[in-house]
Amino acid sequence: MKALYCDLYALNMVQAYLDNGMTDEAVFEFFVRRLPPGRNFLMAAGLAQVAEFLDGLAIVPDEMRWLRESGRFKGNFLDYMENFRFSGDVDAMPEGTIFFADEPVVRVAAPLPEAQLIEARLMNILHFQTLVASKAARMVLAADGRSLIDFGLRRTHGAEAGLFAARAAYLAGFDGTATVAAGLAYGIPVAGTMAHSFIQAHDSETAAFEHFARARPEGLVLLLDTYDTEEAAHKVVALAGRLANEGITVSGVRLDSGDLADHARKVRTILDAAGLNKIRILVSGGIDEETIAALSTAPVDGFGVGGSLVTSSDHPVLDTAYKLQEYRGLARRKKSEGKATWPGRKQVFRQYQPDGKMFQDTLALEGETFPGEPLLVPVMRGGRPLAPLPDLAAIRRHAAAQRDRLPDAVARLERGPPYEVRVSARVRALADEVDRRVAAQDRADKASR
Amino acid sequence: MKALYCDLYALNMVQAYLDNGMTDEAVFEFFVRRLPPGRNFLMAAGLAQVAEFLDGLAIVPDEMRWLRESGRFKGNFLDYMENFRFSGDVDAMPEGTIFFADEPVVRVAAPLPEAQLIEARLMNILHFQTLVASKAARMVLAADGRSLIDFGLRRTHGAEAGLFAARAAYLAGFDGTATVAAGLAYGIPVAGTMAHSFIQAHDSETAAFEHFARARPEGLVLLLDTYDTEEAAHKVVALAGRLANEGITVSGVRLDSGDLADHARKVRTILDAAGLNKIRILVSGGIDEETIAALSTAPVDGFGVGGSLVTSSDHPVLDTAYKLQEYRGLARRKKSEGKATWPGRKQVFRQYQPDGKMFQDTLALEGETFPGEPLLVPVMRGGRPLAPLPDLAAIRRHAAAQRDRLPDAVARLERGPPYEVRVSARVRALADEVDRRVAAQDRADKASR
Repeated sequence: MKALYCDLYALNMVQAYLDNGMTDEAVFEFFVRRLPPGRNFLMAAGLAQVAEFLDGLAIVPDEMRWLRESGRFKGNFLDYMENFRFSGDVDAMPEGTIFFADEPVVRVAAPLPEAQLIEARLMNILHFQTLVASKAARMVLAADGRSLIDFGLRRTHGAEAGLFAARAAYLAGFDGTATVAAGLAYGIPVAGTMAHSFIQAHDSETAAFEHFARARPEGLVLLLDTYDTEEAAHKVVALAGRLANEGITVSGVRLDSGDLADHARKVRTILDAAGLNKIRILVSGGIDEETIAALSTAPVDGFGVGGSLVTSSDHPVLDTAYKLQEYRGLARRKKSEGKATWPGRKQVFRQYQPDGKMFQDTLALEGETFPGEPLLVPVMRGGRPLAPLPDLAAIRRHAAAQRDRLPDAVARLERGPPYEVRVSARVRALADEVDRRVAAQDRADKASR
Repeated sequence: MKALYCDLYALNMVQAYLDNGMTDEAVFEFFVRRLPPGRNFLMAAGLAQVAEFLDGLAIVPDEMRWLRESGRFKGNFLDYMENFRFSGDVDAMPEGTIFFADEPVVRVAAPLPEAQLIEARLMNILHFQTLVASKAARMVLAADGRSLIDFGLRRTHGAEAGLFAARAAYLAGFDGTATVAAGLAYGIPVAGTMAHSFIQAHDSETAAFEHFARARPEGLVLLLDTYDTEEAAHKVVALAGRLANEGITVSGVRLDSGDLADHARKVRTILDAAGLNKIRILVSGGIDEETIAALSTAPVDGFGVGGSLVTSSDHPVLDTAYKLQEYRGLARRKKSEGKATWPGRKQVFRQYQPDGKMFQDTLALEGETFPGEPLLVPVMRGGRPLAPLPDLAAIRRHAAAQRDRLPDAVARLERGPPYEVRVSARVRALADEVDRRVAAQDRADKASR
């Protein structure tokens, strides 16, 4: 990724920092200010892409030319950008970790201009993958073991979103994706059936089924709702015997419109009456976690999920922040109305109940000791990864373990009582200290004008 | 863009089409099935990127290797993919055109496997840019001449979404973007102020303002809400005289939290009392078209708009479709419940009222003649663009002209009576004809089993 994938204000600030010798260490934290009404928890995702971005960050010739030709910047800035590399430290919650409001998910300690320049892209990566992983985790909980496939590519917001959505859904517990490019990029299992156009292009629906079956006999899934769902199910019954003679088994059927529970029951009855009780019924079309939960008593074996997953359609934006918490060793906070932050370089400690479920978290300063597991771990030092990050399979196992540890009230789809995140006395005292310092400076400024 | 940026089912179908010699011309149309409740119109966007995608479409070595190694495909398919190029025709509404439900926005006529393979990426591009342009157009109408800047990069869904959102917002009438990379990629004007971190990193807010002013004197905008908005406005007043002595003018201030109308009035009063009535007041933070409209009587001169714009947060998904309408010269339609389509190769004719406002559209077959302007124009023939597409400035002018032609009820933010889209008698008759043909084939299939 390129260095100018940023907001213009970052460049403006870097120019001013350089002009004023403000290149000392700054600590920024990425967190979510508040959970959306429809989320009891969030799941961290995107760290691998952040580490990759930071590790390889450098300006490319086209960008350097643009900076020079814009006439906006001075020589000190252009020299700085020419040689720009990220040299900072990163601590973070491993991907797949459950987290809550105000908890730092990623903490960056780097020279101030570096930490500022990476802001937009770091947020862009973490916001989206966390958004999708958090939505996907709800679907996984609702599906309760039934299969889930990402069908969302066509409605993701651009090319990278298609890849990131497939990755975030898979790490959160989805079984695979229809997106071939995500199979190539991340080794995610790919799955796919057929489109209505395939049926329509044939003059006969039965002929279409036969053509497809012979061309794609492995894991054969036939789409039933192009014209009449139950009629198509009867065609499958008639065809299944002929195909069996050729050694081809119909694995599943897909329903994509109408009252899915009703169609699923009718199709199940038609198939079972013909002894085809091994054919799985998959549904797609407008599926979200509520639909999945509502179909828990219907004979549905799996779901293809599109727009609701890949845009997190009920809440497509998280209230994410990347805020300066310390500079030159002094804690910092903003006090903007409704957006005040907890200052200092922080850590999160998580305690568990005897049954292994999460009990409560404590937001503390780095260096404080609290009972429980510290959630942020070292990821990068001096701009380079400390060790290879976990692979996708390991992240997926971690996410599954995290889901298992969710308290019941937090795991439910309905809004529950908020999970308790306590703020340590030292963090609170530090906030007061920062406020007093800022107020004193304000009085001094006022006196001098 | 690569050829395997697609759904697996596309590859499955291409294999089956090749096995059965189904490579004749197919006509697919991209359209929106229904408008979201919060939209009276949509604005087409993304055609330039679709044309670029189709023009350069070819498989890359990594993809070819993946196809071979997957063991899923036969030799005829691998040969076909190795030499894959798009050779079809594209007709489309120019970007910036207003459109409504069921109207084809892009029409593709190509050999069936080609038209199928491009489905996901074509939809991915058009869906997102149309989504953002349509949302942005509502904001432009609400802003009524006040300035609008895209601040959304950090909350766009991935890297490409950041660029596409800036492009779609600009063509729909935004004045610029904070996204530097979009300035490089598309020549969109870039704008930017400062972050709270800049203030926080300094021990004194006044010192921060001074440092920034000297480093970035051009179009200087100061951020007021880090600690106390009105207090910061007084600091600006005290500072403005000193800066004027150095030849630096404060152009604007930005408010990013709290009751924006209330703060804007108070800040305006403070600035005006000091004779600083030329300083513009910009607001950001949770802005959408409703906020913009609600601030119409507040002393606000411009808006920085983020998540609501770049994710179209109230409706982040459009009910887009890319459907087979004709194959081997025969019209086709799907009849899935709630998702039936109008068959055939179609055109849209738009009639205007004497005052130039849009009056009604007619969905007709290509070749039919109706009063009004045909909206789809030839874009590609034989896989290559017919001529250079309009540049972004021309698209933006077209979009502005389209906005001016919206009937008042359609231009309003509130839901209005639907704009009339008539369906020609020949399209209706063709739908009946397709249904009769499918039913007859169904009876024949049934008789034979």
